[in-house]
Amino acid sequence: MLVTNVRLALVQTNPTVGALESNIDSIFAQIKAAAEAKADVVVFGEMAITGYPIEDLASRETFLLDVELAIRTLAKRLEAAEFRDLAVVVGHPALASAQEQNGWAIAKNCASVILGGEIIGRYAKHHLPNYSVFDEYRIFVPGNDLLTFEHKGLKFSTVICEDIWQQGGPVAELSRSETDVCLILNGSPFEMDKDDKRLALVTDLAKRHKCAAAYVNLVGGQDDLVFDGDSIIVDSKARLVARLKQFKTELLCVDIESKDHITVVGEHHLSKPNDNWQVWNALVLGLRDYVQKNGFSSVVLGLSGGIDSAVCATIAADALGASNVFGVSMPSRYSSAGSKDDAKDLADRRGINYQIQAIESMVLPFETSLELEGLPAENLQARVRGVILMALSNKYGHLTITTGNKSELAVGYSTIYGDTVGGYAPLKDVEKSLVWELARWRNAYALSRGEVEPIPLSSIEKAPSAELRPGQVDQDSLPPYDVLDAILDAYVNRRKSLAQIAEYGFDLDMVKKVLKLVDQAEWKRRQAAIGPKITAMAFGRDRRLPITNKYKG
Amino acid sequence: MLVTNVRLALVQTNPTVGALESNIDSIFAQIKAAAEAKADVVVFGEMAITGYPIEDLASRETFLLDVELAIRTLAKRLEAAEFRDLAVVVGHPALASAQEQNGWAIAKNCASVILGGEIIGRYAKHHLPNYSVFDEYRIFVPGNDLLTFEHKGLKFSTVICEDIWQQGGPVAELSRSETDVCLILNGSPFEMDKDDKRLALVTDLAKRHKCAAAYVNLVGGQDDLVFDGDSIIVDSKARLVARLKQFKTELLCVDIESKDHITVVGEHHLSKPNDNWQVWNALVLGLRDYVQKNGFSSVVLGLSGGIDSAVCATIAADALGASNVFGVSMPSRYSSAGSKDDAKDLADRRGINYQIQAIESMVLPFETSLELEGLPAENLQARVRGVILMALSNKYGHLTITTGNKSELAVGYSTIYGDTVGGYAPLKDVEKSLVWELARWRNAYALSRGEVEPIPLSSIEKAPSAELRPGQVDQDSLPPYDVLDAILDAYVNRRKSLAQIAEYGFDLDMVKKVLKLVDQAEWKRRQAAIGPKITAMAFGRDRRLPITNKYKG
Repeated sequence: MLVTNVRLALVQTNPTVGALESNIDSIFAQIKAAAEAKADVVVFGEMAITGYPIEDLASRETFLLDVELAIRTLAKRLEAAEFRDLAVVVGHPALASAQEQNGWAIAKNCASVILGGEIIGRYAKHHLPNYSVFDEYRIFVPGNDLLTFEHKGLKFSTVICEDIWQQGGPVAELSRSETDVCLILNGSPFEMDKDDKRLALVTDLAKRHKCAAAYVNLVGGQDDLVFDGDSIIVDSKARLVARLKQFKTELLCVDIESKDHITVVGEHHLSKPNDNWQVWNALVLGLRDYVQKNGFSSVVLGLSGGIDSAVCATIAADALGASNVFGVSMPSRYSSAGSKDDAKDLADRRGINYQIQAIESMVLPFETSLELEGLPAENLQARVRGVILMALSNKYGHLTITTGNKSELAVGYSTIYGDTVGGYAPLKDVEKSLVWELARWRNAYALSRGEVEPIPLSSIEKAPSAELRPGQVDQDSLPPYDVLDAILDAYVNRRKSLAQIAEYGFDLDMVKKVLKLVDQAEWKRRQAAIGPKITAMAFGRDRRLPITNKYKG
Repeated sequence: MLVTNVRLALVQTNPTVGALESNIDSIFAQIKAAAEAKADVVVFGEMAITGYPIEDLASRETFLLDVELAIRTLAKRLEAAEFRDLAVVVGHPALASAQEQNGWAIAKNCASVILGGEIIGRYAKHHLPNYSVFDEYRIFVPGNDLLTFEHKGLKFSTVICEDIWQQGGPVAELSRSETDVCLILNGSPFEMDKDDKRLALVTDLAKRHKCAAAYVNLVGGQDDLVFDGDSIIVDSKARLVARLKQFKTELLCVDIESKDHITVVGEHHLSKPNDNWQVWNALVLGLRDYVQKNGFSSVVLGLSGGIDSAVCATIAADALGASNVFGVSMPSRYSSAGSKDDAKDLADRRGINYQIQAIESMVLPFETSLELEGLPAENLQARVRGVILMALSNKYGHLTITTGNKSELAVGYSTIYGDTVGGYAPLKDVEKSLVWELARWRNAYALSRGEVEPIPLSSIEKAPSAELRPGQVDQDSLPPYDVLDAILDAYVNRRKSLAQIAEYGFDLDMVKKVLKLVDQAEWKRRQAAIGPKITAMAFGRDRRLPITNKYKG
């Protein structure tokens, strides 16, 4: 083994899907920073050039040709800047074949190695995930060969994301190729507890193939996914050398004297903040990126005085600044004084913009003309509020955010076109039990920093209610949320049957009712806003079920 | 070759996804009818036992076990009924392995042969479609072996749908196996012009492998798909012997003297009605099945006097009977007298239930309190109408149908939570140009049958308008619909770029504007109701693009 010193820069960028020019500008700026830090190799995440996932954009030949042009232009720009000795490894899609199938271009998911103004090698991802939110068999064809290149006396190989989550494929060639450092380019979305799985996979790979491994992930929100960064490097003895921050773009350099002797340049950390911090920051980054990448700067939402809207408003204030959050209290004849006070209190604590728009005068003409009472009249109130929020969105250009949580979405405890209106749902994948936990955590976090607790205690402690009729509480219609969330976990996340769930000790009729509510709400979920995935089973692309479905099992 | 006479029954059933018991009851009733008609072999469509597509239901182990139990019960029931000499070939999913992956069951897409109370063979689909609306790599593992069985002196083989659309796989074994009749079980959704592709594939298979081929498809609407039946049988000389009806459950028997000598029992036809008839009937069946399979019996929709709502109401009346269609005219200060007259005329022609609910008294309180004018005030009117329709839906239990067409959906020419409210969109995949064509065709069809033309001529002939401000017409905001539809065809269906489309001779700025509108409307399409796919590229699962997407190409 050579005794050398190669400086490797791991860079987690936050690309925007399709924004080739600005993504490349960010990449170039990071390469420049790496060059100034005397790096010899710079590695970026999966699809850093285009953003990820690109979905059916991969099927457009002109898109793939534009990407190719962008990479070649980047290579020339690096040469012009005289970064000639710097090897750059970056992810992007590429045309796999000049042939189309019915006008559908054939693409592959690649990593290119750029050196001296040229693309000296290109790797294509072998294992194409086609589960959960991923549809990569739909859009990519697999590659089969490991790419290995030597630079400054070290042997590097590249693989991409899923390649290390499955058995076989190019990874199996790492030992034979005598790779010193395996570069793993990733587009790995945040999920609670996923971090430990990644570290375990990377250390396992290092052990099996006796190579160092640099795992580089993307950062940023893309529709319903949040990439959390958290890139890691381990040496060939499977020792964790450094991990990059979560939820932030970052460049970190390490010096590789040999594959089992790697040291970090500058400060670094090896541990991560707690789960609630991680979830909160995922929700904040998801919202911020959705808003900003789609050209908005502000959001509007209904403030009911309840816990969901309080948590959403606080996430929004953390994401965009309180001055960009517009809360609207829309009391009805059934709204309690407490709710109205709590809504105002919430806005005041953080300095969120606040207005009151009573709905009675708008509800009455519908109620009278259409002779509505009971459930239709309850839904009416929620829909009038939806009309108000969308009118303010249209008038002022705010993005409407919808405040429903995952438990409600599961059982359809919402009024479609009412409280569900909006482009983004921050709590879509946060079950009610976790909403409470996050609220308490966020308040404690504020206290620990000497700040005002953003969420009124009474919003956390009172019985949840939609306040659509006198004295209504959620538990008139639903089991207690801890029970509901446990049943939902069994049915939705773990695919258990009615009989199996009842065996856990839940009342059979209650389980039957909950499962029926879940199945019946499928049509509402299809029309629901997107929101950030934080669990292994988020409603949306993770769970694809027919609306028309008579199976009761 | 034996000279024999084997009677084969082709049966196209209309299953409901997940309704195992009633699907099996229908299958049993058809087998009974086939037995009474002295059939020796009965063949059903792909997944006839569960309905199709089952999506992630395939990942639930208990579902697959219930299906297995249902098939075995069916076998015993056939034995008890003494249909012992009758071979039944039927499609269903099955557990592929006792192992799970993270609680996700491993399934395969099968055809079982039942004879003498036992399952004597089981085939697993080899080619798993993972394009267009299909995600079969997600939920199934492929089989590899052709299933061949002998019955009454003839050799039958089974394959499933996509197996004949791709090269290689078990189909390649047909010749070697000396198959007389290849049984092809299909779940092939209707698309305009698809029929000819199917016939070509089946005749090609017969020619290449010198066997007869019986292609059996499902019938019925399942969410966004409509299975059109149109089953066919060709002999080993590739001569079309018979084709079953489109859009109807049907049983047809043929006598097979030898693979190149097949005759139909009873009446039969070889030709199909014209394209407009086919599309119309797909839309009618799609709506009927969505409504009825989801437990509704009636629909409510807004009648504007325009062409889209007129066509939707007529489809609904054809699907459900006029007495189950509830039209609501919701005039505003901007509604012309002509529009109001046309709405009433439409309802009268067919005897559709009709009510008028002016919106002024409901619009005013919002307009005044929120000081709305311009676009926010236009959207408000559409949203007030949405609230009315949903209130009537909630009050009377009607399903709300939304009347927007594909061209509007493409460019976002609609008010979300306004005219888009509803569970089902009959015209979702029908571009505006085709809406007009269908309206004229439906009127001519009525005339040809001595019936009143259902659609007022002025609804067809007047300039389309949303009537949300004085004198507004669609072409204030959009190019003429024939131009728009041509640009959309290039961009959406054929994935052409801005530059490529401009080269066809369209004005560059106009193309740029249309493409921008399409991209910006992605978030609205994600929250849109489902509707029946009738083209090769329907919005929904056919076209999966990010909302956050800055690519302009």
